[in-house]
Amino acid sequence: VRAAVIDMGSNSFRLVVYGYEPGRYWQHVDEIREAVRVGQGMGDEAVLQAEPMERAVRTAKVFGSFCRAAGIDEIDAVATSAIRSATNGRELLERIEHESGLHPRVLDEAEEARYGYLAIANSSTIEDGFGIDIGGGSVQAMRLEERRLAHSASWQLGAVRVSEAFLPGGDSASPKELKALRKHVKGQLDSAEWFTSAGAKGAPRAVGIGGTIRNLASAAERRAGLPDTDAQGYLLTRDALEELIEELASMPPQKRGRVPGIKPDRGDVILGGAVVLATLMDRAGIEELEATDAGLREGIFFERFLQGQDQPLFPDVRGSSVMNLAHRYMQDLKHPRHVAHLSLDILDGLARAGVAEANGEDRELLWAAGMLHDIGTAIDYDDHHKHSLYLILNARLPGFTPRELYLIALIARYHRKGEPDISELGKLARKDDEQRLAVLAGTIRLAEQLERSRDQTVSGVHVTSHNGEVRIDPDAPADADVAIWSARRNADLLERALDRHVAVAPGR
Amino acid sequence: VRAAVIDMGSNSFRLVVYGYEPGRYWQHVDEIREAVRVGQGMGDEAVLQAEPMERAVRTAKVFGSFCRAAGIDEIDAVATSAIRSATNGRELLERIEHESGLHPRVLDEAEEARYGYLAIANSSTIEDGFGIDIGGGSVQAMRLEERRLAHSASWQLGAVRVSEAFLPGGDSASPKELKALRKHVKGQLDSAEWFTSAGAKGAPRAVGIGGTIRNLASAAERRAGLPDTDAQGYLLTRDALEELIEELASMPPQKRGRVPGIKPDRGDVILGGAVVLATLMDRAGIEELEATDAGLREGIFFERFLQGQDQPLFPDVRGSSVMNLAHRYMQDLKHPRHVAHLSLDILDGLARAGVAEANGEDRELLWAAGMLHDIGTAIDYDDHHKHSLYLILNARLPGFTPRELYLIALIARYHRKGEPDISELGKLARKDDEQRLAVLAGTIRLAEQLERSRDQTVSGVHVTSHNGEVRIDPDAPADADVAIWSARRNADLLERALDRHVAVAPGR
Repeated sequence: VRAAVIDMGSNSFRLVVYGYEPGRYWQHVDEIREAVRVGQGMGDEAVLQAEPMERAVRTAKVFGSFCRAAGIDEIDAVATSAIRSATNGRELLERIEHESGLHPRVLDEAEEARYGYLAIANSSTIEDGFGIDIGGGSVQAMRLEERRLAHSASWQLGAVRVSEAFLPGGDSASPKELKALRKHVKGQLDSAEWFTSAGAKGAPRAVGIGGTIRNLASAAERRAGLPDTDAQGYLLTRDALEELIEELASMPPQKRGRVPGIKPDRGDVILGGAVVLATLMDRAGIEELEATDAGLREGIFFERFLQGQDQPLFPDVRGSSVMNLAHRYMQDLKHPRHVAHLSLDILDGLARAGVAEANGEDRELLWAAGMLHDIGTAIDYDDHHKHSLYLILNARLPGFTPRELYLIALIARYHRKGEPDISELGKLARKDDEQRLAVLAGTIRLAEQLERSRDQTVSGVHVTSHNGEVRIDPDAPADADVAIWSARRNADLLERALDRHVAVAPGR
Repeated sequence: VRAAVIDMGSNSFRLVVYGYEPGRYWQHVDEIREAVRVGQGMGDEAVLQAEPMERAVRTAKVFGSFCRAAGIDEIDAVATSAIRSATNGRELLERIEHESGLHPRVLDEAEEARYGYLAIANSSTIEDGFGIDIGGGSVQAMRLEERRLAHSASWQLGAVRVSEAFLPGGDSASPKELKALRKHVKGQLDSAEWFTSAGAKGAPRAVGIGGTIRNLASAAERRAGLPDTDAQGYLLTRDALEELIEELASMPPQKRGRVPGIKPDRGDVILGGAVVLATLMDRAGIEELEATDAGLREGIFFERFLQGQDQPLFPDVRGSSVMNLAHRYMQDLKHPRHVAHLSLDILDGLARAGVAEANGEDRELLWAAGMLHDIGTAIDYDDHHKHSLYLILNARLPGFTPRELYLIALIARYHRKGEPDISELGKLARKDDEQRLAVLAGTIRLAEQLERSRDQTVSGVHVTSHNGEVRIDPDAPADADVAIWSARRNADLLERALDRHVAVAPGR
């Protein structure tokens, strides 16, 4: 099935097409984005100008044709801040309806915040903390408590709006201009007494959405020399944001769009957005903000995808990310499920025998890699382990950090052939990640061989350790000898990781 | 649908699973390969030995369990040379049937040659010339005339067989051993009077299949410092083969398996196979042999996939490769078909206006890139142009040369964003390929924008040239202004390629 979400925002209009099978998977399959800037020149009178309205109608017509040509019936078109607050917003919507055949509904502030909340709660593991959505026209802040939306507020502090009002351009932004903007933002935030660090123990968790935050996180990620993950799950620190603000303020607007991570057509509004974000973070005592690819549009889509549930929330975001990707590329999950099961059985056995560690994170990464190790066969059987790496890295698994994403991809990559190479993690690697990857890759490689005939004939394993030798006893019928024989030939990776001999015993 | 082909060859047993939709696409989705060496130690008495038979039965059992577990009903299991010629082959087959539940049929020499022919004729553009299939036990030669199989012959000259008989091992192969092998091969070939260069004008075209040839081509490709395409479509010259023979002969068998391109478990038989191939090429006057990934197994699969046709042949191999890949990743081809059409319309117009060239190859590459430019959206919409490149390079498009494959992938890559970079072609690039890529990428980028609303509203273009300026007049209704406006913003790539201004006129 295909569904389209059309977001008529103050900065850009965007048509996003999702392909999905209810209860199985969803995927972002197509998109048209146009920097319409419908709110351009609106000013305090809140009147949409003729030229921006013209661009809006033309773009809506393209979106309408697109949906008709693609045969998409499920269309959610929404308009936000600029159109909502304009005195002539109704006029524009009528022209759009008349000329494009689309029927956009205007989201009020609470609805806009709620869709932002759905995007945040469904693409990160946050349960308690703050959500921030910076759009072109408005900014939404939310407070989450036990994954529910406890409070929300909206201010006319969007990146386009504040940039037009406070940062007129020129070769650089002056400290005076920035100070005035910060002061203006600060004054507005007073209306939400729950949006504050007062009374909190330690810095709260926080997740941000919207193109401004995504671009800022991506720019910080690249400055830090990390592998590019399009900012999904990246933690933008307050310090890194301050460095970016200094850099951006020192250059003219056109140059800002050429900073790696910043989209060219955001160059003139990114600094305004960054200053708003910094002020919000200071007010709420947020030291690091997790970025996510999802946004308002995904919130709207999730409501459709998860309809029929009590609340449109994935019960377990990490698990859903993994299963979503597995279902996207595979029909039958019996084999990957069993490889995941055997991998955990081996790892838990090694931990009980005292020869390896198996904390909750290790187990979760190994499970995810087991579920996803074969998705690369959708590209080609040859080198499918490398294709699995490619697909996992590009899918970005919401709920996992960039480091965890890379670890899952690398464990899957080394389920067959090759010697694990931690260098692909780059600066994301922690001290013990080399050993972690070696043990987990050695484990999945053994599990894959024990499940070589794809018939779940080896149901589990017992692991023991004597005199420095690890012995693995498979629960298997006597005729599972090819699985056992293959496992023996592929135990070397685990042997090197554990630095001890690994013997695979015959079945019973 | 899934179908399995099981090939019980003299060197290895292989189970290959194909996923397909009749008339739309097919794909290699799974595989188990085991170097069973069933013919090991058979000798002149032609008796299969106990240990190799044991390995064969165990492997067949794994294959049987695999098919049952995966629910695959369409199974073609075949046995070739070693089992066919062994005096106790029947005994082995009965054990295999009894223990694995598989029902392998023994291919006679003519059937084996015919499946080889189907693989060759369906994965290359050869119409007249020779086909060569070097297996572990036997070698098949074929003569194609107008894409039909005109002659075939089979000899007991497989790589395993001749290696055991003529190259006993040791630190290197002696010139005397190699000479004896060449002489033996030469003597056998006399039986096929049609397999000769006599009376031919110029060197004949020839295509080779089987693991030996694929490994030799891959080794030659790497020695030449070319990007790795797994040898698909690579031309192995007689000179390059001779260099490989010298290198392989100078080292002990274990080391031969570590030469880049040669699989480790072929190390001990690759030299024998190389010498057989060289002798065959000399006899038939073949100066270069095109390698292809397909083999006996694909021949068997194609007979199933193309059933219902007069002959199990793709009418147009290049076209089928492209359509196969397009169907694999996309449901609806209206948009890519139209981008291909508009791209050709622009290119032909530029050629008629005298500002670019458009030979048959350019048109074919541009068409292929047009059909495939969006397949990367199956991975993710973001960066889908890069994903299209990845998918095309890994799919390998039978019928195209490695250079053509890379050009198609790069044209698709640059249909949106970025400046074409010919350096990815490496040593494959010809003198004028940089200009070719620039023009074709500039063309498809313009076509993509004219088809931006995905509704085929721009039906074609007229191209004229006046005073050094190119003018493109789209056949479009007056309200196609977003397409035209987008095309204008994206004409810069073509402008730089042509070194002249490109004006896109309004619709009419």
